[in-house]
Amino acid sequence: MDILLSESIQQIAGKLQSWRRDFHQFAESGWFEFRTATVVADELHCLGYSLKMGKEVIKADARMGVPPEQALQAQEQRAIKQGALTAWLPHFSGGFTGIVATLDTGKPGSTLAFRVDMDALDQNEAQTHRHLPYAEGFSSCNANMMHACGHDGHTAIGLGLAHILKKYESQLTGKIKLIFQPAEEGTRGAKSMVEAGVVDDVDLFIAIHIGLGVPQGELVCGSDNFFATTKIDITYRGVAAHSGAKPEEGKNALLAATHATLGLHAIAHHSEGSSRINVGVLRAGIGRNIIPDHALMKVETRGKTNEINEFVYHQALNIIDGAAKMQGVEYEIALMGAAQSSPPSPAWVDFIYQQAQQYIPELSSVVKSRQQSAGSEDATYFMERVKANGGQATYLIFGAELSAGHHNERFDFDENVMTTAVKTLATIALHLPYFDAT
Amino acid sequence: MDILLSESIQQIAGKLQSWRRDFHQFAESGWFEFRTATVVADELHCLGYSLKMGKEVIKADARMGVPPEQALQAQEQRAIKQGALTAWLPHFSGGFTGIVATLDTGKPGSTLAFRVDMDALDQNEAQTHRHLPYAEGFSSCNANMMHACGHDGHTAIGLGLAHILKKYESQLTGKIKLIFQPAEEGTRGAKSMVEAGVVDDVDLFIAIHIGLGVPQGELVCGSDNFFATTKIDITYRGVAAHSGAKPEEGKNALLAATHATLGLHAIAHHSEGSSRINVGVLRAGIGRNIIPDHALMKVETRGKTNEINEFVYHQALNIIDGAAKMQGVEYEIALMGAAQSSPPSPAWVDFIYQQAQQYIPELSSVVKSRQQSAGSEDATYFMERVKANGGQATYLIFGAELSAGHHNERFDFDENVMTTAVKTLATIALHLPYFDAT
Amino acid sequence: MDILLSESIQQIAGKLQSWRRDFHQFAESGWFEFRTATVVADELHCLGYSLKMGKEVIKADARMGVPPEQALQAQEQRAIKQGALTAWLPHFSGGFTGIVATLDTGKPGSTLAFRVDMDALDQNEAQTHRHLPYAEGFSSCNANMMHACGHDGHTAIGLGLAHILKKYESQLTGKIKLIFQPAEEGTRGAKSMVEAGVVDDVDLFIAIHIGLGVPQGELVCGSDNFFATTKIDITYRGVAAHSGAKPEEGKNALLAATHATLGLHAIAHHSEGSSRINVGVLRAGIGRNIIPDHALMKVETRGKTNEINEFVYHQALNIIDGAAKMQGVEYEIALMGAAQSSPPSPAWVDFIYQQAQQYIPELSSVVKSRQQSAGSEDATYFMERVKANGGQATYLIFGAELSAGHHNERFDFDENVMTTAVKTLATIALHLPYFDAT
Amino acid sequence: MDILLSESIQQIAGKLQSWRRDFHQFAESGWFEFRTATVVADELHCLGYSLKMGKEVIKADARMGVPPEQALQAQEQRAIKQGALTAWLPHFSGGFTGIVATLDTGKPGSTLAFRVDMDALDQNEAQTHRHLPYAEGFSSCNANMMHACGHDGHTAIGLGLAHILKKYESQLTGKIKLIFQPAEEGTRGAKSMVEAGVVDDVDLFIAIHIGLGVPQGELVCGSDNFFATTKIDITYRGVAAHSGAKPEEGKNALLAATHATLGLHAIAHHSEGSSRINVGVLRAGIGRNIIPDHALMKVETRGKTNEINEFVYHQALNIIDGAAKMQGVEYEIALMGAAQSSPPSPAWVDFIYQQAQQYIPELSSVVKSRQQSAGSEDATYFMERVKANGGQATYLIFGAELSAGHHNERFDFDENVMTTAVKTLATIALHLPYFDAT
Repeated sequence: MDILLSESIQQIAGKLQSWRRDFHQFAESGWFEFRTATVVADELHCLGYSLKMGKEVIKADARMGVPPEQALQAQEQRAIKQGALTAWLPHFSGGFTGIVATLDTGKPGSTLAFRVDMDALDQNEAQTHRHLPYAEGFSSCNANMMHACGHDGHTAIGLGLAHILKKYESQLTGKIKLIFQPAEEGTRGAKSMVEAGVVDDVDLFIAIHIGLGVPQGELVCGSDNFFATTKIDITYRGVAAHSGAKPEEGKNALLAATHATLGLHAIAHHSEGSSRINVGVLRAGIGRNIIPDHALMKVETRGKTNEINEFVYHQALNIIDGAAKMQGVEYEIALMGAAQSSPPSPAWVDFIYQQAQQYIPELSSVVKSRQQSAGSEDATYFMERVKANGGQATYLIFGAELSAGHHNERFDFDENVMTTAVKTLATIALHLPYFDAT
Repeated sequence: MDILLSESIQQIAGKLQSWRRDFHQFAESGWFEFRTATVVADELHCLGYSLKMGKEVIKADARMGVPPEQALQAQEQRAIKQGALTAWLPHFSGGFTGIVATLDTGKPGSTLAFRVDMDALDQNEAQTHRHLPYAEGFSSCNANMMHACGHDGHTAIGLGLAHILKKYESQLTGKIKLIFQPAEEGTRGAKSMVEAGVVDDVDLFIAIHIGLGVPQGELVCGSDNFFATTKIDITYRGVAAHSGAKPEEGKNALLAATHATLGLHAIAHHSEGSSRINVGVLRAGIGRNIIPDHALMKVETRGKTNEINEFVYHQALNIIDGAAKMQGVEYEIALMGAAQSSPPSPAWVDFIYQQAQQYIPELSSVVKSRQQSAGSEDATYFMERVKANGGQATYLIFGAELSAGHHNERFDFDENVMTTAVKTLATIALHLPYFDAT
Repeated sequence: MDILLSESIQQIAGKLQSWRRDFHQFAESGWFEFRTATVVADELHCLGYSLKMGKEVIKADARMGVPPEQALQAQEQRAIKQGALTAWLPHFSGGFTGIVATLDTGKPGSTLAFRVDMDALDQNEAQTHRHLPYAEGFSSCNANMMHACGHDGHTAIGLGLAHILKKYESQLTGKIKLIFQPAEEGTRGAKSMVEAGVVDDVDLFIAIHIGLGVPQGELVCGSDNFFATTKIDITYRGVAAHSGAKPEEGKNALLAATHATLGLHAIAHHSEGSSRINVGVLRAGIGRNIIPDHALMKVETRGKTNEINEFVYHQALNIIDGAAKMQGVEYEIALMGAAQSSPPSPAWVDFIYQQAQQYIPELSSVVKSRQQSAGSEDATYFMERVKANGGQATYLIFGAELSAGHHNERFDFDENVMTTAVKTLATIALHLPYFDAT
Repeated sequence: MDILLSESIQQIAGKLQSWRRDFHQFAESGWFEFRTATVVADELHCLGYSLKMGKEVIKADARMGVPPEQALQAQEQRAIKQGALTAWLPHFSGGFTGIVATLDTGKPGSTLAFRVDMDALDQNEAQTHRHLPYAEGFSSCNANMMHACGHDGHTAIGLGLAHILKKYESQLTGKIKLIFQPAEEGTRGAKSMVEAGVVDDVDLFIAIHIGLGVPQGELVCGSDNFFATTKIDITYRGVAAHSGAKPEEGKNALLAATHATLGLHAIAHHSEGSSRINVGVLRAGIGRNIIPDHALMKVETRGKTNEINEFVYHQALNIIDGAAKMQGVEYEIALMGAAQSSPPSPAWVDFIYQQAQQYIPELSSVVKSRQQSAGSEDATYFMERVKANGGQATYLIFGAELSAGHHNERFDFDENVMTTAVKTLATIALHLPYFDAT
């Protein structure tokens, strides 16, 4: 079978590349993946997958960091001009750009889910011939949107995997779910899919990422140490006043933000593990001689465990509230993103490790575990839900040579990682009956 | 009459000095004036004044900055050892060390009140032969108590005035009230006498001070620009924790105090006039490796007007409250003192000015007005009450040569100011019928 | 003469209105007054005044808050399209948009200078028919530039005065200088003209403003209480780092700005008079999960006297520097504007008061003095220089009915104030020989 | 041999108890261990050990947190009254209260060092019959000094071990050094002994502690995770001024301390491991209406590694310096204590583990490693020096039942731990030839 599988995958190598480059060129940031989602939906539909989309798989009020309605509409129009398949668009309209494709073999067996993410970053792409996507003509045509984290590759891998699994359907058991998630950047999208119940029936779960500093040819079967995180925007609203003529009439939103900033950075360390806090952005005031009547703060908390992140976040709420009271100003907190910590399931990692070592000779190295550097990933929401229901979950990293680090304007990856990933994931699915999940 | 009056006063010059030196030697801080009060009461009683004392003239819960019960008892015992007249002591026990002596002429006329204060400062006196009270053997025998502001002289002047007015009683009209107030330092005592109603029947009011930078021989008839002030102690109470082992379990009272301190100093300026804020003392924590669970702050606000001081104080309350909420700690605020702003009554100042110029040749200079430097005085409580009832009030300064500034450990004054003061005040009382208060 | 003068002025009333409306329509912000300056220069040249312009009257490095070169060039192009008289433009190119017109009578006498300002504010004008400039079709055609403070009227008054003085040249003595200043808003321009020496030969100086809350028909002969001010932009530059992965590698510019903000607002009050401090704008950071590597603060200090403002400014410099050191970041301070305090010269105010009362029946009220509310004006630089050289100076306010307050998007004024102003100023010039300046 | 050893130790059980109770009763805080040191020296001398003491084993300027000379003298007098052996006292005078006793077997072999500490804590002992030391009459007779951490037991164990080793000298090889260290509390003493070179010839090193939450009967052979720490006192000195009359003349030491406190608590977390910061004490100002001219801060930094602690400490120095500059005040930093992180040597831990398991049946449990909760210990200075020279080192914990936690006023321990400890340590020494240190 392995030889056949390898051949099958080689046959779609060209497709993987063209999908990836198409998604790269029409890069779309979180909740704006209108064109991408229609392409993905159409492809999966043609393959015969059963699809759920949009509000069926995304709970509206569990979305985080959704752009304003006006921006959503403008981006939907932009997507249409860029070839979005309009038949599918109504499903995704308004920022519901997620898809779940199911393959039900009809045979008994576990339900296995794979999750890939589709969104780009809010940044411009390098315009230089030393940057391959530019040299080869597929760099992003959208200002301030760039696939600088590899999610274009993830989406292509998801589609490639769909092809292969469909082709080998007769050898599969149970059910397979392919989850295409929007808005992973800023950890904004996963929770809304989890709360829509898309993994409530899932026994085994795999999320994937390429690159992340892992060498080309290496597979990490259980990436660990994702930090739980909460991302919030705080807006203080006070009262403006002329700072020379009537200083006593002002209610100073900047002073509130200033106390909050210092208070947040001074939150106590936690003896159970590492935590983080950052006020990454502060914008306040409109004129030199006006007491600032508004201030915006972009803040994130992190913790090695959900409990530690909760501790920091709870402290932060007190600090934000108290700082407002100090200056007599009002405030609002908007939840902009969140992720959890979620260690991979050991037995599931072991199984994947064995499969990869035995069947994927393309891999020069297979390791069980790797500690991330306090990064965050909202795949953890899926993982926690699956584990809470008694299932098992893990997060795979497929090493890839990178032209520049993630989030760099010259980020690019060796596209060969895609076939390796499809083969590995398909192998796991095909060999699933050999896994004793109990 | 003036010649006779001068002679009468010369006859008591020795008494003035011995009273003053006695009070100086047995200096008693605010609410501890047990010995002083008994001496004053006995003297006034012997002269035939009608006395009200203790709780009759001091409203208990309007007192501010009263020391703990234990300290009051210890100081009362100390006073007994130092010759307090125990017959009078019960009136003053517990920190009710005020006296109002009334001389009712039985004749129609205004009610005129004079107010002097009796308390010493919480400081040690210089022990050097260059300091006259030490050289002449009457420096304070009480640790951490010293008459470094001249209130010993004020009390002596009050007694001297009582002597003279009694002697010239037949030439007086209306009623005269002599108010001997405790705890002026820290502006703690006046409000409690005002709220006991001691000036509710007063038409004309004079408070006095010696020194204050005014040259010997000069009289200021209407000292102005006393700032309204509020003095508070803030105690934050959090939860201690080992800063290495369990930092997350602490609730940090020092951080609350720190935010409060910066917030207080950053209170907006007021366009209607000057204000002040000071965190004069901050004490927090017990050990280097313990998260501080308590913090004490000694704070005062000031304002050129009562409204401005209220503005600052109101802002301060928000800041103190918000800072507590930021750290999740509890707090208490204790009112430790307060005074008001109160401009002198112009017609009353004019009358005093004319009397002084005409009848007190000892004065080398008489001026109507003088701006104080944002200092505070709780005589303003009496002044505001008298004016609110339609009366008139002022604050006199009798210039005096000083050996060192007020509140200095080597403070001393030229005792000749006392006879001048008594003569001036007696003259005003005797000539009162010539004043048209309408 | 007064009747003739009145008639002369009525003859130019139409011109005053059309000048003002032209300047209003083509509103130009500070250092961008290219079109305005060419119109003014051409008019004065045609009248026969001797002109100095551009770098002759503006010292380059004493200018403050000059926009970037690119913006200056773009605005110059914009001015050309809007009818700037290109023959004059080279004088003003690069942001040297000041003019001094001199009328030398050849007769002995004082040198009298009048100063008007020409710049608009950085704001949009109301687009509503209830706003007269919009209804009558002369609202600003330039985005983010609006004459919302009346400087369009000042410039028109300056031109009208030039007409009248030229007409009555034979009755004048000494020399007259008409100063047309750029960039008064933000108090950025006056210093550069003073340092170019334009008032070094001036004996008597008058600056004017319309409105400012003074009722229509009232003249204030000596506006007082302008606060000295210093306006600075502070830029902190640190080192960015990922706040989750490598927080220890960052140097946090926002924390520096935060400490600076609290430190600045906590600068001590001054016993000699009022002061002000404001951090009106703070912008820091680019992303939620990046430690901010830059922060911009827009700050101003004020003081009732130059000394008090200097005190606040000196404290501010220490605070800004120390806050940088706390976080190990670099910083730059850019001087964006400055003004001084400068009380009007009493004798000169008296003379103007008498002239106005006697000769300007249009004025329903003439007052000598008026306290401004801690506002600032860079005319004070001229005033201080003139007084330092032994001359006399004052600041006149011509009351005017306003449709909305200064700096409001619906600001407009009753244009009749312009003829009254021209008549008053011309009268002062014509009667100057009666003023005894000694 | 083991049976004989057990018997020998049982014979000195009474001595162990009486030593411990004697040291407990005459508890002496760090650098004040005058009486304790003379008792220890005399005992070791009588046993025939070769002694080095005082300045021979303590480098004067490497001591930290030494009390003022006056306190040292007073405590030396106190010690004399309490029975210090005056013959030995000159060695220790001035706060050089350390002893190193050497037993040179003359046979080849490693040099093995044991370190115990002798100091008490600065706290009062419980005065209640429920507290055994009080009930049995050996609670501390010195105010504000109490053995609440078990160092009295450590010193007794050291003496007991000295007895046994002397008795079994013929079976020993190499050299044994017994180190009696002062001032471990606050991590103040070890560095000065290390810098005097007392372990420069040591191959194998053991420090011990009793209790620390380890159950009675358990031995931890390699306590790990001691945090590196630096303890400093910061004194800011500004200029006092009357906060009402002349606020501008002050230089506010409290504001400097306030900015420093917030800055310190906001030091960035480190991605390589945990860190800590605490401002445990802040005392500033003397009066409510005086701008504070001094402030004292007691601060400590901690880090999981020496590098992390260095990072925090270096940041702290910048913050302290910058905060001073912000307010224009001076400052001094006094180093009050320090310790390092130092993981135990694995092979040495293994050997001890085997010995304890095999030969000490009194131990119900032997574990190799235990993570401390971010506590600090200056034995780490010895450990780091020994390891730097190629030797091996570890830190043993002998579990003990406690009546209350360490540093509690009712702390007491089950004295049986002392015989177990002596037996374990002696066994290690006797079996040392079996350890292959390479």
